[in-house]
Amino acid sequence: MKITLVGVGLIGGSMALKLKSTGFTNYIFGVDRSEKHLEEALNLGIIDEKSSLENAISQSDIIILAIPVDATENFLPKILDLIQDHHTVFDVGSTKLGIVNAVANHPNRNRFVAFHPMWGTENSGPKSALVESFSGRAAVLCDRQNSAEDAVKVVENIVEHLGMHLIEMSAEAHDIHTAYISHISHITSYALANTVLEKEREEDTIFQLASSGFDSTVRLAKSHPEMWIPIFKANRENVLDVLNEHISQLRKFKSALEKENDELLEDLIRNANKIRGILR
Amino acid sequence: MKITLVGVGLIGGSMALKLKSTGFTNYIFGVDRSEKHLEEALNLGIIDEKSSLENAISQSDIIILAIPVDATENFLPKILDLIQDHHTVFDVGSTKLGIVNAVANHPNRNRFVAFHPMWGTENSGPKSALVESFSGRAAVLCDRQNSAEDAVKVVENIVEHLGMHLIEMSAEAHDIHTAYISHISHITSYALANTVLEKEREEDTIFQLASSGFDSTVRLAKSHPEMWIPIFKANRENVLDVLNEHISQLRKFKSALEKENDELLEDLIRNANKIRGILR
Repeated sequence: MKITLVGVGLIGGSMALKLKSTGFTNYIFGVDRSEKHLEEALNLGIIDEKSSLENAISQSDIIILAIPVDATENFLPKILDLIQDHHTVFDVGSTKLGIVNAVANHPNRNRFVAFHPMWGTENSGPKSALVESFSGRAAVLCDRQNSAEDAVKVVENIVEHLGMHLIEMSAEAHDIHTAYISHISHITSYALANTVLEKEREEDTIFQLASSGFDSTVRLAKSHPEMWIPIFKANRENVLDVLNEHISQLRKFKSALEKENDELLEDLIRNANKIRGILR
Repeated sequence: MKITLVGVGLIGGSMALKLKSTGFTNYIFGVDRSEKHLEEALNLGIIDEKSSLENAISQSDIIILAIPVDATENFLPKILDLIQDHHTVFDVGSTKLGIVNAVANHPNRNRFVAFHPMWGTENSGPKSALVESFSGRAAVLCDRQNSAEDAVKVVENIVEHLGMHLIEMSAEAHDIHTAYISHISHITSYALANTVLEKEREEDTIFQLASSGFDSTVRLAKSHPEMWIPIFKANRENVLDVLNEHISQLRKFKSALEKENDELLEDLIRNANKIRGILR
């Protein structure tokens, strides 16, 4: 099974490495606007050949889009223009509604599967790709009824090769849930980094004192704007909704501290502790 | 060198395990109000004997206080009442000013070293103790001038056995820096957990979709109120100061999204990315 990989960065690269290691594919065409990333991907064994989009599609059965969500929205209709009935196209984007809307009326819509494997790191580029990355995590398939059954089967097979468990939901529900589970974490982490950078003028002190707790809450603040700005824009209303709730939760802590209301402080912390039962 | 360990939980237990493994001590008396924790610590080889405080102190040279900061404030003067000139007492608390103030005028003040090894996890109790925990991290020694030189030497020796690097500062500076570097992370994490628990009513969905990013930002929300309420209370003004800044940083994200101000959004993210250069 030959694959066209559009975007040879962290997510596409990790997926390629894993699908090669399991024998799902033995040939991957790399398409990317960055010549540097293509060279790196070639050297790392992520792709077997740099290619134009047209050439790659004509020689493969599966097209994976692993580029920022705004680029996916722009690029996906053009890809669907180029494909035939034997092709399966899927994306890996962190938002889904804008993407499915962008091809809702396309004659080849049913060859596309809206997909989101729930994994990522704060790093980017082919050099950050890791063969064991998706294993054990959730993979979300959206609006299944709008994809051809054989195309869904291809993606289900890939999910199995990645060692993920499949969850199905609507694109709309996906975007609401990911606002809670992923997007808000990035905003709080960015804001936390900015807070510390604003208040703590001594960089050496940050560096020296940073403990494991700080590292983990601020890790996501290293994530690149090229990926995250399009996500926040595409999921603006849901993210704002969760962000407003988050600010109001922080205000409760502020009020408990200001008023020295220990009972409220304890209630807030004990409620937060419930996450322990949910996340293991 | 025999040690009295007051508090046989995560921090005290981890320190005991390490100091035994390096040969710094071969006998530790455990003092704790929880009989269950004492039994666990005994079974785990953290302590060698359950003891009363008086008996333990009379037979050891070093007294480690590894209990919540409010308990340390209450208990430390009583311990200084009991000791002699050959004893060294140090605590491991996450705030320092309240503790040093509690013994500022005690005749045995100079036998006490105000200490904070910068490590912890969201877990607690002796069963969470890990022998390799402190290694490579910062250990803060506060107000050195108020401790006897030989007592400081004992703590410096322990820092070496723990594999930590020593930083010195005033108790006041410590409490300001830790508000930025540690305490605010816990508040944002608690608030993030409450946000998700408030907005995401489907616990199964949280559990299934939680990605590595969410896990890491919300991990600290599992931390126990018994430890953290006293820290927030002891460091109330600094924490409030940082919390206000954090809320204002989040409001900038909110404003950028509400007004669809992509330039501001990008500025905020690129500024946050600077933490990459500081934290590696």
